[in-house]
Amino acid sequence: MMKERAMDLLKTTREKKSLIHHITNTVTINDCANVTLAAGASPVMASAPEESGNMTLLADALVLNIGTLNENIFSAMIKAGRAANDKGIPVILDPVGVGATAFRTEKAKSLLQLINISIVRGNISEIASLLDVKAKTKGVDAGTVSIFPSELAKQAAKQWKSIVVISGKQDVISDGTSVFHVENGSSLLQSVTGTGCMSASLIGCMAGAGNDLLLAAIVGTSMMGIAGEIAEGTGEKKGLGTFKVHLMDAISLLTPETWKERAKIYESY
Amino acid sequence: MMKERAMDLLKTTREKKSLIHHITNTVTINDCANVTLAAGASPVMASAPEESGNMTLLADALVLNIGTLNENIFSAMIKAGRAANDKGIPVILDPVGVGATAFRTEKAKSLLQLINISIVRGNISEIASLLDVKAKTKGVDAGTVSIFPSELAKQAAKQWKSIVVISGKQDVISDGTSVFHVENGSSLLQSVTGTGCMSASLIGCMAGAGNDLLLAAIVGTSMMGIAGEIAEGTGEKKGLGTFKVHLMDAISLLTPETWKERAKIYESY
Amino acid sequence: MMKERAMDLLKTTREKKSLIHHITNTVTINDCANVTLAAGASPVMASAPEESGNMTLLADALVLNIGTLNENIFSAMIKAGRAANDKGIPVILDPVGVGATAFRTEKAKSLLQLINISIVRGNISEIASLLDVKAKTKGVDAGTVSIFPSELAKQAAKQWKSIVVISGKQDVISDGTSVFHVENGSSLLQSVTGTGCMSASLIGCMAGAGNDLLLAAIVGTSMMGIAGEIAEGTGEKKGLGTFKVHLMDAISLLTPETWKERAKIYESY
Repeated sequence: MMKERAMDLLKTTREKKSLIHHITNTVTINDCANVTLAAGASPVMASAPEESGNMTLLADALVLNIGTLNENIFSAMIKAGRAANDKGIPVILDPVGVGATAFRTEKAKSLLQLINISIVRGNISEIASLLDVKAKTKGVDAGTVSIFPSELAKQAAKQWKSIVVISGKQDVISDGTSVFHVENGSSLLQSVTGTGCMSASLIGCMAGAGNDLLLAAIVGTSMMGIAGEIAEGTGEKKGLGTFKVHLMDAISLLTPETWKERAKIYESY
Repeated sequence: MMKERAMDLLKTTREKKSLIHHITNTVTINDCANVTLAAGASPVMASAPEESGNMTLLADALVLNIGTLNENIFSAMIKAGRAANDKGIPVILDPVGVGATAFRTEKAKSLLQLINISIVRGNISEIASLLDVKAKTKGVDAGTVSIFPSELAKQAAKQWKSIVVISGKQDVISDGTSVFHVENGSSLLQSVTGTGCMSASLIGCMAGAGNDLLLAAIVGTSMMGIAGEIAEGTGEKKGLGTFKVHLMDAISLLTPETWKERAKIYESY
Repeated sequence: MMKERAMDLLKTTREKKSLIHHITNTVTINDCANVTLAAGASPVMASAPEESGNMTLLADALVLNIGTLNENIFSAMIKAGRAANDKGIPVILDPVGVGATAFRTEKAKSLLQLINISIVRGNISEIASLLDVKAKTKGVDAGTVSIFPSELAKQAAKQWKSIVVISGKQDVISDGTSVFHVENGSSLLQSVTGTGCMSASLIGCMAGAGNDLLLAAIVGTSMMGIAGEIAEGTGEKKGLGTFKVHLMDAISLLTPETWKERAKIYESY
């Protein structure tokens, strides 16, 4: 039954063409815009504090990604976040590299305090750092953490009153009560920059088109995993240039039916 | 006869390797640089106010794109624009998202007042907003406007003393007196971010290599449409990753002869 | 014997997954991140002065690229550079466009004065401008210089106490005593933006994984040349979109064995 609702959401997203406002990093901003289009939504990226709030008022969801954060962009995020809260649209936070520097950790925590965040998506060390669980972040990649991801996701979701997505070989998603696992993916996804950021954009597309945040997190996350599998294919190992092209192909051509066939989603009790 | 001159311009652009200075958005800046190279020109992007003027003095054309504008970049644009006017090289303005926020609309209007703009390229709601014709801009995508595009292009061109390009299913180009229509294109072009920005870059390449602004606008605009048709192809629907790669292929391999065969350009009276 | 050490370095780079911190331009930042992953290392890009130093303390090498420099990014570079010097990790400088504007030239010279730079990589007019040898830089492309590249590389390396790489049809690399030539490459490389920046990233990957700066410069430079040859292929001329995809493929799939077979490296006496 969850799969039927997911299929409806994928269909709605292509019909509704929701506007997804991003304040995001300069490394993968182009990929985030293209993946939003590939999912059937419409991206806009306005990172000047002078207009970030007003642009948010036109949007259906807001994605905040701190990959190349600075003070000016932080101000833009606060204004956009407050506008999103006022308008009642979902806010997705991707706390890229939290734990790597004090600046990032502090700013990400401020965002969580000053804005009602609907969905937080990060790797395990980012989520752990944000929750002050002992973790080691290596640059923007996942480090190691001494807690089960499912437990961490649940704790974080409870504390932040958000949906929490912990990406990894197996993605874990919790609303603080239930815990879901997504077992789609490809090992090549971690060798292309921006696949995490693009997952957050896909979650934003789903959150903007629907009204079920947990479902949006599950469907957005699984889309990237499924697209990774399709892009990896079954033949010889692809080069990373071709893999990335096929990844975007797979997202743009993904039908609700293919999603249903391939999605490996489990609830853990 | 216009087609012969267009073919000469395409040839000259590949020979002359003009330097096209861009102050543009961070979303599609890489695509703009690559499309400039694909057209045979040479891109440079210097958006610091400290050097934007001096860099312009080396250039053959200047492209201003407000997709991720902030106050600092606005200052850089003013300095670059004035340098371009002093040097007598063409300035192309792409008023991305005008009408979406007051900040963008005001800044785009200031650019038009403070700099002599040679060519303005936007979608119908952007051009309408800039001319204070009632319009509704949805993020950076075209909204709806209650005026014929050809009439709007003509009015805007007269008022701004510029060439005006209104992109859409059918592109409309006017110098205030004549109106041309370009009927090349692919519906997939709107599903890849930056195809509008890249059109402005192509117009900049043509304007920098030649000395006929109206011709530059027509040829630059039609190149993107023709490349879109070639990239779309005739088989089954392509994924957006592959489509974008084929789009860049088509521009880099476009010969004057293929352009002549495919260009669908009509003057309306 | 140098080839054996180079093969070891390529292998080590894929095993060690060094963290390569970049403060780089917004035009090719995504390509630099992806090429770093394709070489087997891990990229991080933190350009805010508030965190650039701290992020550097986690890294194995630092790449500074002034392609879209401004005052704020310059401050971030100084902090990162000093942290790199304190930690004793290599710093690679790509002085993009030096000579084109006084701002760039002055800032690049300051970087060389204030930071111990391990490797400088640029085209001939950039290196000449930086050394105050008479040169003419056309935007960010190479101009003409009245000195042999090998002599220029040697002089510059002596003066800056750095390894110097001058890219061109034939790449020249010197440590101030020896001079090496790399004769791999493809004419298509100059038609894709960022191939120079990506070379600097590859050099950074090799410098971060090993402990021989001269070898790192030679291997990193030759990787891009070899990947260009493989991507160009032997059939009909490829479009630039496909060429770029195949270039990234070639880097990600490059084995030490293929490198050994194809590398054309000569020492000149």
